[in-house]
Amino acid sequence: VLDREYPLPVPAVNESLVRVRIAGICSTDLELVKGYYGFRGVLGHEFVGVVEQSSQPSWIGQRVVCSINFADMNSPEYAEFGLEHHPHRTVLGIVARDGAMADYVAIPDQNLLQVPDNISDETAVFAEPVAAALRIAEQITLRPSQAVAVIGPGRLGMLVAQVMALRGTQVTMIGRSDRTLELARQLGMNIAKTERLHDSCFDIVVDCTGSPAGLEQSIRLTKPRGTLVLKSTYEGMASINLTKVVVDEINIVGSRCGPMAAALRLLSRGQIEVSSLIDARFNADQTIEAFRLAAQPGIRKVLLDFQ
Amino acid sequence: VLDREYPLPVPAVNESLVRVRIAGICSTDLELVKGYYGFRGVLGHEFVGVVEQSSQPSWIGQRVVCSINFADMNSPEYAEFGLEHHPHRTVLGIVARDGAMADYVAIPDQNLLQVPDNISDETAVFAEPVAAALRIAEQITLRPSQAVAVIGPGRLGMLVAQVMALRGTQVTMIGRSDRTLELARQLGMNIAKTERLHDSCFDIVVDCTGSPAGLEQSIRLTKPRGTLVLKSTYEGMASINLTKVVVDEINIVGSRCGPMAAALRLLSRGQIEVSSLIDARFNADQTIEAFRLAAQPGIRKVLLDFQ
Repeated sequence: VLDREYPLPVPAVNESLVRVRIAGICSTDLELVKGYYGFRGVLGHEFVGVVEQSSQPSWIGQRVVCSINFADMNSPEYAEFGLEHHPHRTVLGIVARDGAMADYVAIPDQNLLQVPDNISDETAVFAEPVAAALRIAEQITLRPSQAVAVIGPGRLGMLVAQVMALRGTQVTMIGRSDRTLELARQLGMNIAKTERLHDSCFDIVVDCTGSPAGLEQSIRLTKPRGTLVLKSTYEGMASINLTKVVVDEINIVGSRCGPMAAALRLLSRGQIEVSSLIDARFNADQTIEAFRLAAQPGIRKVLLDFQ
Repeated sequence: VLDREYPLPVPAVNESLVRVRIAGICSTDLELVKGYYGFRGVLGHEFVGVVEQSSQPSWIGQRVVCSINFADMNSPEYAEFGLEHHPHRTVLGIVARDGAMADYVAIPDQNLLQVPDNISDETAVFAEPVAAALRIAEQITLRPSQAVAVIGPGRLGMLVAQVMALRGTQVTMIGRSDRTLELARQLGMNIAKTERLHDSCFDIVVDCTGSPAGLEQSIRLTKPRGTLVLKSTYEGMASINLTKVVVDEINIVGSRCGPMAAALRLLSRGQIEVSSLIDARFNADQTIEAFRLAAQPGIRKVLLDFQ
């Protein structure tokens, strides 16, 4: 539901109050509105805004994005788990913390990142999902000569494929129809339909489908001793045949939030194409319509305007 | 079925004919007799025997075990996949190759390993499963300070736990009852029942249960950014909740055959206790009874005598 009278957030000590400009709708948001994770509150973890209040005067007036996991960096758990896996963390718009689909959002100062001037608002809002795509390179060794497949040419998959191609790797985008693969083709990616591919033909497969069927396909396509990266979460259980995982010694890696500063560097250098991923931009009072559109098959990024 | 008139194997060029002394029954054998993998032929991939015929005279009279994956080492696929994942491999008693539960078995010379004199036949037959346990250390980094759990105190789990404890690691053996955990306790392992353990308390969890329920427990017990090693295969599908795998960025690693020479070194040095894992020893003509016993809960290694 759209709550027009929701109270303004009150920033705690060491937090800033950010006036939101644009927020993006992500697949996790679409799962959350279906009841995933039992989240209640303001959604939104992809955004760009301007700091209006802060205990640190240097932040005021800065255009910012933020890393979305919040916890006390001085806590004993920080050294072991970092912010991303801190057992007492909250997550912006996902876990026990109001998000950015609102006029204002409160963000811990330590999580803020300044957006370089040459990045537009429409581009800056992609910093969080680009960081998620970059996370893969922090978890596994990606060799330029390896055969990489990304399954699911959607809002996240198109970013993952671009990030992985930056090291010279041959990246194949895999989808179910010519229509969904058209943008990947236009961006010069190698494209393929799932059913045309032999078993065990990729060193690294990244599942960005957000569906149990995608996981099954990913296992099928991964070479012996290859790596399968799981990028998307969804409600419910996935059924998998473990025999190929064990006999082929496949490495399955869950992958979540990534390095925001690195994402901003790539966006600032124009190395990731994001404008063609934007299918629509709605005013904040059309949020329901925006979510309805974002849930349609083949739709990639839908933006919400709070200016 | 027991076939008393099965023809003697005929060794090919560069193969030796081995007179089998003892073979062991493994969980994979129990799955194979249920129809897993569609294997037809002679079972048996854990054995010790003596070479009777060989194109290489130096092998004749040697007591041997063997690595169980067979393929042409000069083939172009060998460099990429090795023997263990060679696309055209056969596997002794598992894939398109008669196994060692017979008076004689034919083995490629390149797969033979001489058994040191100080290893008894009853111990040597454990070389293959000890190698499988050692495979884990070839796949992941095991730090002595990490908290390791092995789920399933069975014929394979007891070997995995011992191998992992050899680096000074605190290894907890997890089972469902005091009865199944008794041997682990006697061998000085830390023991725990599944339901008593908090979520996310181990850096590394090795699933040796051979059941979908074990996989679910393993995911539950793995820390954020921890590693879950899958050691057992079984017929059918496993249902898993991928949310914890992705959000906690768990690394799931399928793990199969390991280094036989390293296993023989450990057995020769007496660093792995195997005698207490032997529950029964049957003559070859009691193979059916032996399989029936091996399939009982709580039974670990059952040996078959072909001498």
